[in-house]
Amino acid sequence: MQDQNSREYLHASGVQKATIIGGGVIGASWAALFLAHGVAVIINDPDPDIADKVKVLIDGAVPALSELGCCTDGMMEKLSFEQDLTKAVAGVDLVQECGPERIDFKKDLWRRIEAASANNTLFLSSSSSIPASAQSGSMQQPERLVIGHPFNPPHLMPLVEVVPVAKSDRTMIARVMDFYRGVGKVPLELKKEIPGFVANRLQAAIFRECMYLVREGIVSIRDLDDIVTNSLGIRWASNGPFLSFHLGGGSGGMAHFVEHLGKGGMEQLWATFESVSFDFRTSRLLIDQAQQFYGDHSIVELAENRDRKQVAILKALDDVSSVDGA
Amino acid sequence: MQDQNSREYLHASGVQKATIIGGGVIGASWAALFLAHGVAVIINDPDPDIADKVKVLIDGAVPALSELGCCTDGMMEKLSFEQDLTKAVAGVDLVQECGPERIDFKKDLWRRIEAASANNTLFLSSSSSIPASAQSGSMQQPERLVIGHPFNPPHLMPLVEVVPVAKSDRTMIARVMDFYRGVGKVPLELKKEIPGFVANRLQAAIFRECMYLVREGIVSIRDLDDIVTNSLGIRWASNGPFLSFHLGGGSGGMAHFVEHLGKGGMEQLWATFESVSFDFRTSRLLIDQAQQFYGDHSIVELAENRDRKQVAILKALDDVSSVDGA
Repeated sequence: MQDQNSREYLHASGVQKATIIGGGVIGASWAALFLAHGVAVIINDPDPDIADKVKVLIDGAVPALSELGCCTDGMMEKLSFEQDLTKAVAGVDLVQECGPERIDFKKDLWRRIEAASANNTLFLSSSSSIPASAQSGSMQQPERLVIGHPFNPPHLMPLVEVVPVAKSDRTMIARVMDFYRGVGKVPLELKKEIPGFVANRLQAAIFRECMYLVREGIVSIRDLDDIVTNSLGIRWASNGPFLSFHLGGGSGGMAHFVEHLGKGGMEQLWATFESVSFDFRTSRLLIDQAQQFYGDHSIVELAENRDRKQVAILKALDDVSSVDGA
Repeated sequence: MQDQNSREYLHASGVQKATIIGGGVIGASWAALFLAHGVAVIINDPDPDIADKVKVLIDGAVPALSELGCCTDGMMEKLSFEQDLTKAVAGVDLVQECGPERIDFKKDLWRRIEAASANNTLFLSSSSSIPASAQSGSMQQPERLVIGHPFNPPHLMPLVEVVPVAKSDRTMIARVMDFYRGVGKVPLELKKEIPGFVANRLQAAIFRECMYLVREGIVSIRDLDDIVTNSLGIRWASNGPFLSFHLGGGSGGMAHFVEHLGKGGMEQLWATFESVSFDFRTSRLLIDQAQQFYGDHSIVELAENRDRKQVAILKALDDVSSVDGA
């Protein structure tokens, strides 16, 4: 995770010092990641107890970062806190915003950040639901603001969705991509803004069908989860949907898939899809089954179990990649 | 993968000898798996060269099975071939059908298999698209036929979707489940028949949105694949969609997710979904991009790379599970 390559990317990005706005779960996870790659971090958050809270969250992230190959010794020395926004962003190379998902809050925030920052500071929002063009309305140079949307938890999940606006400067976008690569992430750039970006749209698409199958009594939520972890999850952690079907087409590849499995086959399945909603009955079903099948374990236990599995998968894939270079 | 538990399950199922109908890619993969767990296999296939073809396919599966902990020494001694269907199914404990996906073929096949088999032989179809109730129309006891749908490749992927019909005998279903557990699989039972069963419906649901995002020019197929492998794939190989959102709801669990992220959030995304089809322009786009991004490697190379990653993930998850028992 932290190697010669990532150091070169980080150097190319010019980022040595970053400010994180909001020390919640996402902000603290970003902070742990940045610190573990040698980037100094200032956290700006109005909560008077923020330092203690962030330190607990970072402590929770350190074992995984360490297991993934980061040097975490002494990293906390580069962490500081600054409640005054103007002071917090003065002289830093990058701002990663993780504040509340309220458009008015973000608009005002970016106006103030822009006014207090250097001309070449990178402006990134972690928002999952408010596009950059909607947050930047009060900025002098709205094209400076870019979405850098992590996949939770940011310190573990490789993906960062980078969503520029039409006028974003390409040199600046290149620095953003270099920075995220420099902290061990896999940044993917979306060509246009779209509600939910890509990962959350895909998640919503599959979840709609999951809800339908449970609502219709085909499977319980537990059986559905087990079906996914024992098939599609393993497939998609290895290859994405398109490459999977390119291989599913055998020696004829994607062309064979489209002709013989897509047209007719998949289109017939689509025709059987029905809409669902979080109506009372369906919501109740999900909540009751979550209690029935997962209620014996606390959320904390379940989350620790998830993180252990995710770290194991990341390490396993990293070992394979280092063999074949793919 | 092959341990004391699996031997006990296999013993409970009473299956020592199985006939596989059709020695294609799926049939040979099942054969490799069954043999690696000590089950004798007879392959019934009209192709005069079937023995050579199957042996090549099994040889390809052995390294992965071995790496996953199966004892593959001497397993080929229990493999035989029999072109006469009546002789092939006489005296075996289980028939796993992997023939062509044609309803008339399957109806006639099961009529003949039933007439030539013992009363307690288990009848399983690998079909992904023809439900048991449609295949069993010419049988004396149609309720004996059950879907045992593997996820490709069967020797690697844990999932088997078991789909009984309403009248299926529960003792027989229990033997089916024991058998699949006995050969190291994770069988999940669907409560009702549904087109595509569960895994393929979920795959179709996500692929529809994947196609939409590529058609709209938001991302290339390569970027979409990389987004999935670096986020959702890892998540879903660890936890299924429901448990993921139960955890996504934080300390409030599923109830918090439904109220704060489902209603409104996810429902708003659903409202932006549009339909797609394998029309000429979209099909062309997928085929061209598959060539552009994956065309430098042969399908065989790409498939080997996929299998290496999948084996690595399976081993990693197996190690984690053996630590925490989850």
